[in-house]
This record gives sequence, C-alpha cells and structure tokens, in this order.
Amino acid sequence: MKLVLLSGGSGKRLWPMSNDVRSKQFLRVLDGDGGQRISMLQRVWGQLTRAGLADHTFVCASEAQCETIHAQLGAGVSVIVEPARRDTFPAIALAGTYLMQDAPSDEIVVVAPVDQYVEDGYFVALQGLPGALEASGADIALLGVRPSHPSNQFGYIRVRQDDPGLESHWHTVRAFKEKPDAATAKTLIHEGALWNCGVFCFRLSYLREVLVAGDYPDRYQALVDGFSGMPKRSFDYEVVERATRIVVSPYAGMWKDLGTWSALTAELDETFVGPGVAAHCEGTHVINELNIPVVAKGLRDLVIVASPDGILVSDKAHSADIKDAVSAVSGRPMFEESRWGSYRVLDYIKLDEGMEVLTKYVVLRPHANISYQKHALREEVWTIVSGSGLVAVDGRVMQVIAGQVVRICPGQWHAIRAEGGLSLIEVQRGVQLIEEDITRLCVEWDEIMEHVAVAGP
Amino acid sequence: MKLVLLSGGSGKRLWPMSNDVRSKQFLRVLDGDGGQRISMLQRVWGQLTRAGLADHTFVCASEAQCETIHAQLGAGVSVIVEPARRDTFPAIALAGTYLMQDAPSDEIVVVAPVDQYVEDGYFVALQGLPGALEASGADIALLGVRPSHPSNQFGYIRVRQDDPGLESHWHTVRAFKEKPDAATAKTLIHEGALWNCGVFCFRLSYLREVLVAGDYPDRYQALVDGFSGMPKRSFDYEVVERATRIVVSPYAGMWKDLGTWSALTAELDETFVGPGVAAHCEGTHVINELNIPVVAKGLRDLVIVASPDGILVSDKAHSADIKDAVSAVSGRPMFEESRWGSYRVLDYIKLDEGMEVLTKYVVLRPHANISYQKHALREEVWTIVSGSGLVAVDGRVMQVIAGQVVRICPGQWHAIRAEGGLSLIEVQRGVQLIEEDITRLCVEWDEIMEHVAVAGP
Repeated sequence: MKLVLLSGGSGKRLWPMSNDVRSKQFLRVLDGDGGQRISMLQRVWGQLTRAGLADHTFVCASEAQCETIHAQLGAGVSVIVEPARRDTFPAIALAGTYLMQDAPSDEIVVVAPVDQYVEDGYFVALQGLPGALEASGADIALLGVRPSHPSNQFGYIRVRQDDPGLESHWHTVRAFKEKPDAATAKTLIHEGALWNCGVFCFRLSYLREVLVAGDYPDRYQALVDGFSGMPKRSFDYEVVERATRIVVSPYAGMWKDLGTWSALTAELDETFVGPGVAAHCEGTHVINELNIPVVAKGLRDLVIVASPDGILVSDKAHSADIKDAVSAVSGRPMFEESRWGSYRVLDYIKLDEGMEVLTKYVVLRPHANISYQKHALREEVWTIVSGSGLVAVDGRVMQVIAGQVVRICPGQWHAIRAEGGLSLIEVQRGVQLIEEDITRLCVEWDEIMEHVAVAGP
Repeated sequence: MKLVLLSGGSGKRLWPMSNDVRSKQFLRVLDGDGGQRISMLQRVWGQLTRAGLADHTFVCASEAQCETIHAQLGAGVSVIVEPARRDTFPAIALAGTYLMQDAPSDEIVVVAPVDQYVEDGYFVALQGLPGALEASGADIALLGVRPSHPSNQFGYIRVRQDDPGLESHWHTVRAFKEKPDAATAKTLIHEGALWNCGVFCFRLSYLREVLVAGDYPDRYQALVDGFSGMPKRSFDYEVVERATRIVVSPYAGMWKDLGTWSALTAELDETFVGPGVAAHCEGTHVINELNIPVVAKGLRDLVIVASPDGILVSDKAHSADIKDAVSAVSGRPMFEESRWGSYRVLDYIKLDEGMEVLTKYVVLRPHANISYQKHALREEVWTIVSGSGLVAVDGRVMQVIAGQVVRICPGQWHAIRAEGGLSLIEVQRGVQLIEEDITRLCVEWDEIMEHVAVAGP
C-alpha cells in the first residue's frame, strides 16, 4: 500500500499566519515534544512514522510548497510536484500515474488530506482500507468519520445498514449528501450516515481505467505536460460519484478540521504564545510571532494573532468568517520558509519618488545557498550579522564574515552560501519590489562555482 | 502676562504609543485640519496662537522632550529646560526665576498643564485670571472647572458662595478636597465646588517671597545648579495649600483629561486609523501605526493600538488600568521624534553568541544633522535609501546619495547631514545596543566641520 498526502492550497481563514506560501498545515502552532511548536504537517508525519507508514508516503504539493515541506520534514521526503493548482482529481491522477511508473497495477493507494488533526487510531483505520477494498470487491473504499454532532459544515455518506461488511469493518455506500441543514443532519446521523473526510482508497488499475475512459493522459509525463488541460474538478465529483461500487469504513476516533482560529486554539495547551502578557482575560488566545509585545486586557472569547503579515483581533465566534476582511488587506507574504532557510520582512516603505525600500532578515541554514540570480530593477545591500559564508557576485567569489557588507547592483548575478549558518539584514531598494523581478541561472552551489570559474578574474 | 505650559512626564496609560520619550501630549492622534493627525501639544499651540498668547508662552520640559517639542511646534518656541524631573514645585520655581531675569517683579504668570483637551474658551478664562488676582488682592488665583459629574478622579476646590467676586468672576477658596468618593463628590458639587485643573496664577514677586521664605535659590542659575536639592513636591502642596488668600475663577466649558485610551478615542472622528479593516465591530477603535494591516472582526467596545513599541488590545472599560501589564513588557522606545528627524526600530534580534542586531529606519529633516558621535561597542551600516547629504567619519567628509552604503566601525566618530531630506536604514551590530553607548563631541554642523578641517586627510 502506498499513501498519498494531498497538501492543500492556501488558507486565508488562518490569516495572518497562513498566506499564499504558508498554508495552514505548515503553521508551527501545535504543542510538540519538549515545549517546541510544531506544524500540522509535522504532527501528521510523526504519526505516520510511528505507524510505520512514512516510508510508503508521498506528499503531493505545489512547487511553492516544496521548500517548506523539505524544511519541515527533511530533504528525504518524497514530494510529487503539481505543475499548477487544479483541484483534487488532477492532483490524484498525477500522484497515481507517478506511482504507476514503479508499482504493479494492482497496487492499492490510499489518498488523504494532510491537514487533518486526528489521533493515532486514524492511521490504523487507514491501514484497514485495502482490506475493505479487497473483501468487498469495490472500486473505491472511503473512510467515514462517525459524526459527533449534526454539523452542517461536512458532507455525509449514507450507507446500507442491511449488508454490513465482514465483521462490520465496511458498509456499502448508498448516497452522498453535501452539507445538509442541521435537521437533515440529525436524521442522517440517526440512520447511521458518516462524515466524508476526503480519504480515498483504490487500485492503480482502477484509476488508469478512469483516466482512459475519460480520455485523459494515463502516463505521468504526459499528465505533467498536459496538466493545464485537466479539468478543475474534485476527485469526489469526477470519480467517486460515478463509481459503480463504493464501500466505506467507519472511524469513530478524534477527527478535527483545525481550519479556523477558534478550532485551532481549542487544541492549544497555552493561551499565550510569544512575547507579551494578558490580564483579566477569559477564553482568549494570543499567538504573537512578532518580537514586540502584545498586551491583552479585559478580553473575553477573542483570538489575537500577530505575525509579519498582519494582526488579527477577532471574536472566536466570528473567526471562521474572516476571509472577506482578509482579502481586503492582504499583500505580499512577509514570512517564508524555504529550501535554504527563511526570511522575515521587517519593513516596506513606499518613498515619494516611486522608489520602494524592503528590509528583510534572512537566515540561511548551514551549507545552504540561495540560487545564482539577478534583478533588473533593484539593488540590494546585505549586512552579514552572524556566521560566515561565501558570496558570489558576477563571477567572483569571496569569503564573508559577520560585520561585512555586500552591495549588489541591478543586473549583477549574485548568490550566497552559509558555512556554519549565516544571517543577514537585506535592504532592497528599487521599483516593483513586491513583484517577481528575478532571473535564476542555477540553484546548486557546485553549478554556481562553475560559472564563477568561467567568469572569474 | 506670561504663560508657562508644564510638559508632564511619560504616560504608560497610553502605551504603546506613549513611552519614556513620547508622553501623551506628543501623540499625533487627534483630528487636525485637512485630515492630518496632530498631537495634544500641537492642538493647544494652535489655540494659544488664535488667542494671541503663543508669543508670551514658555514651555517647561525635560531635556528629553525638547527635541520633540521643537519638532512639533518649530524651532522658535521658547523652552525652559528642567535639569531633572522633580514634580511641579521645582518646575514652576525654575520657570519663575527664568522669567524674573527679564520681567518686572510685578509681572503676572499663569501656569497650566500642556496636556489638557479644552475648547478655545479655556484660554479666554486663562486671560481673565490676572484680573481676578488684581481685583481680589489674593496671592494666587486658580482656574476651577465646573464639574460635569461627581467624579472621584479629580481634586475639588470648595469656595465661599457668600462673597462672590466682582461680577462673579472669582470666589474665595475655602478648602481643597482630594479625590473624594462619589457621595462626597455629589455633596461638594451641590455646594458649588469646582475641579482643580492645575492652573495657577501669581505674581513673580510672590513666588520669590515663597522661595526666600523656604530658603530655596531665588535666582535662575542658582536654581539650575541646585535643582537636584529641590524637594520632589507639587506646587499645590508646597505653595497653594500654604497661601493666605486664594481665589478661583470658574470655567464652565469643555475640559477633558485624555489620559486613557477610552477617553482619547472618544474624541476621534474616525474609528480606524492606519492600514487594515474592521468588520462587525461596535464601539471599537483601531489606531495602527505599523505598516502591516490590522483586521478587527466581531468586536465590541475595544481599543486596539499597534505601534513599534507593541500592541494593545483592551476592553475600553479596562483601558485606564493597563499600567501594571505594560510595566511587565515595556522595553526600549521603538519610535522617537527628535531635533533632527525621527527613527523607528524595525527589528531587534538577540543572536546566540551574545551579539545583538538592531535595525532602524531613520529620517532626517532637510538641513538637519545628527551630532558627531562615536560608539565603543557597536558598528553601524547605513544604507541611504532616499535623498542626499554629507557624511563625516573620523575627520573626513563625503557626499552621499541614495543607494550608497556607509560602514562605521566601533570607535569611529561619525555624523550625517541631510541636504533636501534624507532617509536611511541603519543596521547596528554589537553588544549593549539597548543601553546608552554614545560619546558626543558636538552637535552643530559648523562645529563638526571644524573637527573635519583639523583632522582632515
């Protein structure tokens, strides 16, 4: 069995911590071991490792997310890169054809979203799906969460109660019901319906049949090349709802969607994370990623989140509903984790004359380097504030240590590599600093050194 | 008549906008003409100018406040500098002896706090005080505010109702009552008591008698030299309560103490100042001085203030009571207006090895310069981001324009002067960046140029 984790898109509902590159699964807010903060992705990965599944798991993600995934889980994690964001059907087709390259056609695949907050038993249930698929002879096996309340936020899976599967580990699916009203939800739960949690189990051969029948590419490279022609449709809509025989395995353990600040903070042990203090507050959570203090005084049932992207102060009851307000204010991401380290935007100024100034704090991991790149419309000044490394500028390479300053003019090729870790303050000055004004020559330091050798003094 | 405005101390109650150098009278939050934000000081100065009093007004302030006062009111304002903070009696004695140097001994002085939010009629009432002093023959004339409610936050002045002054413009004072409970306050108001608003009117000759009688220095320079020996006592305690005959003029117009966020925001036309958006909020004010957005959602009767010093989120009812919480978090001031311009701290990092990095955005006014100074324990990198100017480093002077970088090592003398305005990003790196590590050689650019000439290349 292979497991594919779908790493979903950006989440404005957890602004200001989530942004276009930092989706909710990457936020380091959950309680980890030894008091450190971990992300939902890291938590799930720990559970997969304990369940012995990590080695058989592939993460399907956009290119923008790759660097963060490697930064959080290590470079060894297998990532299948989606050429573009096009909903779950194209993503699962891509992952499936990727796996078909090496796996036998009767290999069973389980696909699950990465952003689920569950207990370890969930992964035991996932491991039971191939058995349910085989025993039932179905095309697709789903995981169905036993509802804890008549929610109107989830889709329901209606099942036949008269033909329980072997030892009740599966039921035949009768129908799907998307987000019913509370009264209908109550009736559905009474008749034994389960929540659809977006987990699918199928044989690679079945997926290939679906692709061929739909006249879609059924080979990995063809799908990569033709990805922009794939429909923006969900796997539920394009595959599950058209399948002949579907079964579902019930899962009765803890399952939560931490997609809102109210849901997420409910799982935190601490009510105040980061610098600052709260006094006379009740039911209030503060998460402060800035290095200036937050003082919370006399508040009730609020969530306060401060990050380089902005500051949210919301009543918890309204926190599911911040999307519109956030859309009105959001700009460039002010914090990013990447392959080589991370950066935080300290300041952005628009000067009178149309010039802009962007100041960043950049941290490189040991032996990591940024790519060899140039900008047409901006100059950069790097003040190395800690560590040491090598700087390549226009074919010349030099050693730098803390305290030194490097000035890069528009049009100059440049890269930097850390020795034992390195941090710098970067001042960008020019126009279009927020837009993409970058040309990359190469990424690996060895390659960069070849350019240096060629163009060197 | 001369008017002395006492510029009081720092106010933690308006944190995070007020700090050790930025007292509440300097905060640019009030509605000015043409949509610009003005400070309480600027508002009062505008009123004084309209009342024809500005030319006869002296501001008594600490040295730390001088630069801000000149920045907000212009370089022409007369400031009497207190050598140290020692309460109102020493401050008024200092201002009085300063005025004695040029004024006749029967000159009448009116002293008023600078941080009052009043209507123009208040200044008409101030101008009536010398007449009340003369007509009554009293030692001291006070201004008494007609109470609007039985407040337990103010001192009350009890008056004789049976000997109204000429045309009722003054009453003889019977007694003072400090912050009574609400029931007592009600009785006091019923009998005609007035709020004490800290306004004193007296002749210079009377002040000199008080100083001589108390064996205090009665000459300006002697008082400056002996300032540290002056008692930390209020003028009320040391002078008013011991005076033989005191009268009070009633003032029935608007008078407010905007010393809390709840009081201050009540005077603002706009409920949202700065970047961001509010949705489904009631009775809530947002003042955002940062350049990242604030999103406020579903809030009721809160005040949110974000500034480089920190972020306050408080229920308005609790906003008078934030001092303790703020004392627990406050660090160095992160924003300062000064003689030469202003700066804002963008970031402060403590590195592992004990090194610190402080990044500032510095704006110099046209033709202004910072003093010629050196630091023992830090180096600085200036990236000029706009404008042009002259930089002096260790006896050499050079022209700088936007885009250039200046690196200053520990122990190097340095200064910078703007031509048509100049801004720069400064990266400080070293130890003890928060403490005072500065030696100043001189302040004026002409003087600095002499050192350059002497030490030049």
